[in-house]
Amino acid sequence: MLNPFFRNLGPFKITDIVQTLKIKSEETYVNQIVNDIKDLMASNTNDITFFHSKKYKDLANNTKASFCITTENLKEELPDTCRPIIVKNVLLATSTITAKFYPNSINDNFDKSTNFIDNTIFKDKVQFGKNVLVGDNVSIGSNCMIGHNTIIEQNVSIGDNCTIGSNSIIRNTLIGNNVIILDNCVIGKHGFGFFPNNKTNVRYPHIGIVIIEDYCEIGCGSTIDRGSMSNTIIGKNTYLDNQIHIAHNVKIGENCIIAGQVGIAGSTILGKNIKIGGQAGISGHLKIGDNVDIAGGSGVIRDIPNNSKVMGYPAKNIREFLKENK
Amino acid sequence: MLNPFFRNLGPFKITDIVQTLKIKSEETYVNQIVNDIKDLMASNTNDITFFHSKKYKDLANNTKASFCITTENLKEELPDTCRPIIVKNVLLATSTITAKFYPNSINDNFDKSTNFIDNTIFKDKVQFGKNVLVGDNVSIGSNCMIGHNTIIEQNVSIGDNCTIGSNSIIRNTLIGNNVIILDNCVIGKHGFGFFPNNKTNVRYPHIGIVIIEDYCEIGCGSTIDRGSMSNTIIGKNTYLDNQIHIAHNVKIGENCIIAGQVGIAGSTILGKNIKIGGQAGISGHLKIGDNVDIAGGSGVIRDIPNNSKVMGYPAKNIREFLKENK
Amino acid sequence: MLNPFFRNLGPFKITDIVQTLKIKSEETYVNQIVNDIKDLMASNTNDITFFHSKKYKDLANNTKASFCITTENLKEELPDTCRPIIVKNVLLATSTITAKFYPNSINDNFDKSTNFIDNTIFKDKVQFGKNVLVGDNVSIGSNCMIGHNTIIEQNVSIGDNCTIGSNSIIRNTLIGNNVIILDNCVIGKHGFGFFPNNKTNVRYPHIGIVIIEDYCEIGCGSTIDRGSMSNTIIGKNTYLDNQIHIAHNVKIGENCIIAGQVGIAGSTILGKNIKIGGQAGISGHLKIGDNVDIAGGSGVIRDIPNNSKVMGYPAKNIREFLKENK
Repeated sequence: MLNPFFRNLGPFKITDIVQTLKIKSEETYVNQIVNDIKDLMASNTNDITFFHSKKYKDLANNTKASFCITTENLKEELPDTCRPIIVKNVLLATSTITAKFYPNSINDNFDKSTNFIDNTIFKDKVQFGKNVLVGDNVSIGSNCMIGHNTIIEQNVSIGDNCTIGSNSIIRNTLIGNNVIILDNCVIGKHGFGFFPNNKTNVRYPHIGIVIIEDYCEIGCGSTIDRGSMSNTIIGKNTYLDNQIHIAHNVKIGENCIIAGQVGIAGSTILGKNIKIGGQAGISGHLKIGDNVDIAGGSGVIRDIPNNSKVMGYPAKNIREFLKENK
Repeated sequence: MLNPFFRNLGPFKITDIVQTLKIKSEETYVNQIVNDIKDLMASNTNDITFFHSKKYKDLANNTKASFCITTENLKEELPDTCRPIIVKNVLLATSTITAKFYPNSINDNFDKSTNFIDNTIFKDKVQFGKNVLVGDNVSIGSNCMIGHNTIIEQNVSIGDNCTIGSNSIIRNTLIGNNVIILDNCVIGKHGFGFFPNNKTNVRYPHIGIVIIEDYCEIGCGSTIDRGSMSNTIIGKNTYLDNQIHIAHNVKIGENCIIAGQVGIAGSTILGKNIKIGGQAGISGHLKIGDNVDIAGGSGVIRDIPNNSKVMGYPAKNIREFLKENK
Repeated sequence: MLNPFFRNLGPFKITDIVQTLKIKSEETYVNQIVNDIKDLMASNTNDITFFHSKKYKDLANNTKASFCITTENLKEELPDTCRPIIVKNVLLATSTITAKFYPNSINDNFDKSTNFIDNTIFKDKVQFGKNVLVGDNVSIGSNCMIGHNTIIEQNVSIGDNCTIGSNSIIRNTLIGNNVIILDNCVIGKHGFGFFPNNKTNVRYPHIGIVIIEDYCEIGCGSTIDRGSMSNTIIGKNTYLDNQIHIAHNVKIGENCIIAGQVGIAGSTILGKNIKIGGQAGISGHLKIGDNVDIAGGSGVIRDIPNNSKVMGYPAKNIREFLKENK
């Protein structure tokens, strides 16, 4: 998918990239150009990728990237067409190079391109409240409403028949048709991802976006962070209640129902037809199957297979939990 | 109580209502009119009501409604004066007919009637910040303050000596005297109630309102949803801390103290003099007695009798919990 | 530290203070003046202090205050230079006298001194969005950005290279350099402190402030309350994720990482290099050591020593918790 939100400042010469990483190497590089930085699977010839864990060995074996940020231990897994760039900390180096290609993906400064909607092409097309701000290159479908004081930042796309509440902020987000976003939401801000470092942490670039599919509803005061390398996705006809937090890279399937104050940590993947009770929390990097019921207040710290009902902290089979806690 | 927020488009003919429900029936209806839809107890002659569970048998026996949406199994409980309208899914049919009477109770579109307060009758009566918006037919007592960017939507009533913070949104709400509502709140939005349905859920109408009694304080970033058929009520001198979520139909008694990030699910009834610690959660449809203490972080999933102290998830007697968790 | 936020209306005569407390006493007071009310340690000659618990005996023995609100039982601990003012409820009387010195520290009315930033001295110095409001006597360093609809209330100080998001409200706060505060935050409001009282609670004055040290990041929708007698402090390079609530008087050390929806109750002191997972809650008046890891969803109700890893509710050693909950 073409990402309209973060402009790629590349291509760069590979010598330039190696220099940015401050690698002292006897190796010489011809002046080959590098177009983009992508993950192992998405990369093409003349892209640079990264490989930091044996877990991704199969993807590494088959990457089409021309260069790969990796370690001495892992480099043998790469094909001959992919030249390793050896570093100590793969993720930190990847962050540095991602920031070189996409420098505006690190901070979430306010959008200076915004105008009051009365002064834009949406003046007669959209029903809007007072003080609504719209950034450059925003797209809004037919039959939409936008409430008071809401800010739609540059390049955001909103489909047909959508209703956005008041006091909400939407950036780096693609919204389908028939979506309702209620008041006081912040959607599309960078995730809580950085490298801890005394004196000043190093922020991780977030070049992913938020995708909200058709027929979703997002409750008041909710926050949905955009992805780092991949996208944060809310599946079709999924409803979120108030004060929910969805972290970066989370993907939620279709027809899910998520009650108030739930939190889902980064990179967790949820299936479809899932019900989550109020205040439940789900740890990061998990896989939650289809048709799963998670009781309110639960704390999920392990993967959950399809068709399960769980409760407790840590969440377990709901019958077992209730038997133990009569 | 007269509800100024949702206009009743009735009366309708009963034949019209039956047709809306797409009931194929050999029965014939005379052109009787139906004034309103109410619950079993509140209904009068020429109203339509609904009856979906044996639990409400006694109320059904005594309803004054002329018509009742119910099932084949339950219809015998109705008095002769009440004619049953037989459907498969009582709540879904009730939702459909409620929406027919009160179509503007389903969505929370921004209030198009609002004006900057400087252009209203409150210009010299109220102390207000910048960009304050006030809708049609709002009532504000003496000695009130309203902070910057706050939106008071149509028909909201605010008593004397009230202070509303900045960036808050208030709709479908009646506020007593000496109430303080802090910043970034959203009060009076529809509850998280709908019929799950693949492709697109069916939203439930919410014709209840929010009532905030005298001397209450509502903390920053809190959300209080309005009721569906009944009202959401915050009792006199009850204080809510920041980031609290109160769902639809919840009723909280007098002199309660509720700490930060607490969530109370729909239709739960709380007594008076209750203390709830931070981040505690209370499931829906429960009854919490007077003088109850709920420790921070607890998850309440059962009714709690008067004068109890509970802790844990699920919440139990606090001494027992602490003995088991030394 | 000089506190620019709450103006001291003193000095008052001690006879005036005794009268405010409605003490019926045969004692006579010469017309000595009282400059300020402070805690036992911070007080000087001609200040009044308070002493309500044996726990603070050592501090009471050495206070330099000329007067002390205390009880019959505790008065013997005071030095000869400090005259006891005997009351029944020390904290309530202290609250009354604090309110006499600092009446504007009780309520958080909107700041009437604010102007649109375009009309202030910051017009050419700061990059700002639409509708930004700035109060009297605000200080903003070089190279700062402030997003749309944000309100910086009177006397707030912001250092160099800071970025404030949109729709945020900042009051009674001192912000260091290189700080990022994201959208929809409310920082510096009074804490949730009051004396429960039927009909109408008695609000406690909050004359403390919020201090956010260099290099911090505060996530969207977070609330940080100011202190009552002491300050609420976020240490250098500490990062807060979205929807976090930090209560009054909390002090957080350097280099901490706090994930989404965490809540920390009043007066808890946290060390440095602490990691707290999402939705964890920490009770009030606790001491959390350095280098502590608190797992997501935990409920901490006891002090935690340095270098511990804890999980569960109540939180215990993480290995023990996971062994018991396989």
